[in-house]
Amino acid sequence: MNDQSPGFEARLRQIGAERYHDKHPFHQLLHSGGCTLDQVRAWVVNRYYYQSRIPMKDAAFMSRVEDPNLRRIWRSRIEDHDGRAEGEGGIARWLKLAEGVGLDPDYVSSAQGVLPATRFAVDAYVRFVREQPLLPAVASSLTELFAPQIHEQRIAGLLANYDFANDQTISYFKQRLNEAPKDVAFGLQWVLDNAVTQSDQDAAAAALTFKTEVLWAQLDALYSAYVAPGRIPPGGWQPHEGLL
Amino acid sequence: MNDQSPGFEARLRQIGAERYHDKHPFHQLLHSGGCTLDQVRAWVVNRYYYQSRIPMKDAAFMSRVEDPNLRRIWRSRIEDHDGRAEGEGGIARWLKLAEGVGLDPDYVSSAQGVLPATRFAVDAYVRFVREQPLLPAVASSLTELFAPQIHEQRIAGLLANYDFANDQTISYFKQRLNEAPKDVAFGLQWVLDNAVTQSDQDAAAAALTFKTEVLWAQLDALYSAYVAPGRIPPGGWQPHEGLL
Repeated sequence: MNDQSPGFEARLRQIGAERYHDKHPFHQLLHSGGCTLDQVRAWVVNRYYYQSRIPMKDAAFMSRVEDPNLRRIWRSRIEDHDGRAEGEGGIARWLKLAEGVGLDPDYVSSAQGVLPATRFAVDAYVRFVREQPLLPAVASSLTELFAPQIHEQRIAGLLANYDFANDQTISYFKQRLNEAPKDVAFGLQWVLDNAVTQSDQDAAAAALTFKTEVLWAQLDALYSAYVAPGRIPPGGWQPHEGLL
Repeated sequence: MNDQSPGFEARLRQIGAERYHDKHPFHQLLHSGGCTLDQVRAWVVNRYYYQSRIPMKDAAFMSRVEDPNLRRIWRSRIEDHDGRAEGEGGIARWLKLAEGVGLDPDYVSSAQGVLPATRFAVDAYVRFVREQPLLPAVASSLTELFAPQIHEQRIAGLLANYDFANDQTISYFKQRLNEAPKDVAFGLQWVLDNAVTQSDQDAAAAALTFKTEVLWAQLDALYSAYVAPGRIPPGGWQPHEGLL
């Protein structure tokens, strides 16, 4: 089945080309400098919830992996997010961004004000990885194939357009540029190696599609609440809440 | 409720005094030199399954922990078992013991020949930690309160009584003497801090009792299959299988 892999990899990449959230209008607004500070804050509050659940998702995956080698390789993802000491790691870096935009990091890390639709989408992702077979669980992580480009756009766009942006506040994205390539290279090869039947490949493609939906749904909720029509649902962060 | 803690800790320690598997006749046989080499091998094959599931249990716990600090502290348990590089960590050390008693480590790590009753007990433990609230999940790990003593007895007993025992083959136990104290000190304090109501304390005590049952059931199955009456159930390791 190895001769199917080039076509299969192209199929996975096509899912990103069509569905990855770099094409969502919220990101275009954010990267072009079109967001108000409150809209940036709303993004920071909500995206924190996604970030904060990634290590839980990765631990759920590891809890089902019988191979110590695969667990050890995967464990580095949790280390990247949780760090090796207090104040280190991707979650702490995200909270630096939160501070940079004037939000109290304790408020942000409390996950108060996260849009219910964001919770539903993110929780669906964690549940997917906890419950599905290992192949779709790994395949759902492959949106990282498309992440370096959006991180580069974001770094450039934030630095060019927002006063809060500096090396400290955007360190999360810079660090992801260092971390994500090892993760996605491993994950992609693992999926290519393990998706040997057509049914496997269909399941992997469906998992990646599902993950693009998880990401897109978060931005739709954000846009609806804070851009247009700008109707913040009950429970959603209100501008001026959780400020430093 | 803090004034209840001394009594509560004593209650937890009493569970170990009455139920921990150091009192099981199989361990007394093992540590006194009374086991045949095949009985030692049967123990190594079966106990491997327990060892191999501990990191999965710890990952299942982490997958439900929202606090990055708690996850980071707990992550060291997985590092202890899976290591930081291939060939390191507690699982690799257990396989050194397997080799030392003449078993093919690939056979042992395949988990073939593990007694069905061992699987049922160990899988029940992983499921417990995956499904129960965090307090009983942590409390179930507190059998480690009682582990240093059994490890010291085992190290002395194996070295005194068996030709296979040397620094290399018993390195698993020596290393656990270094690792377990930090884990259990943290876990005990966490349980004492978090079990504030009587109902919490009852749940924690029940969880620790459950865990002693998980350990004891494995030794009963081992004893039944390989000591007395010595009736190996279908699927159980047969002497001369999986040898180097």
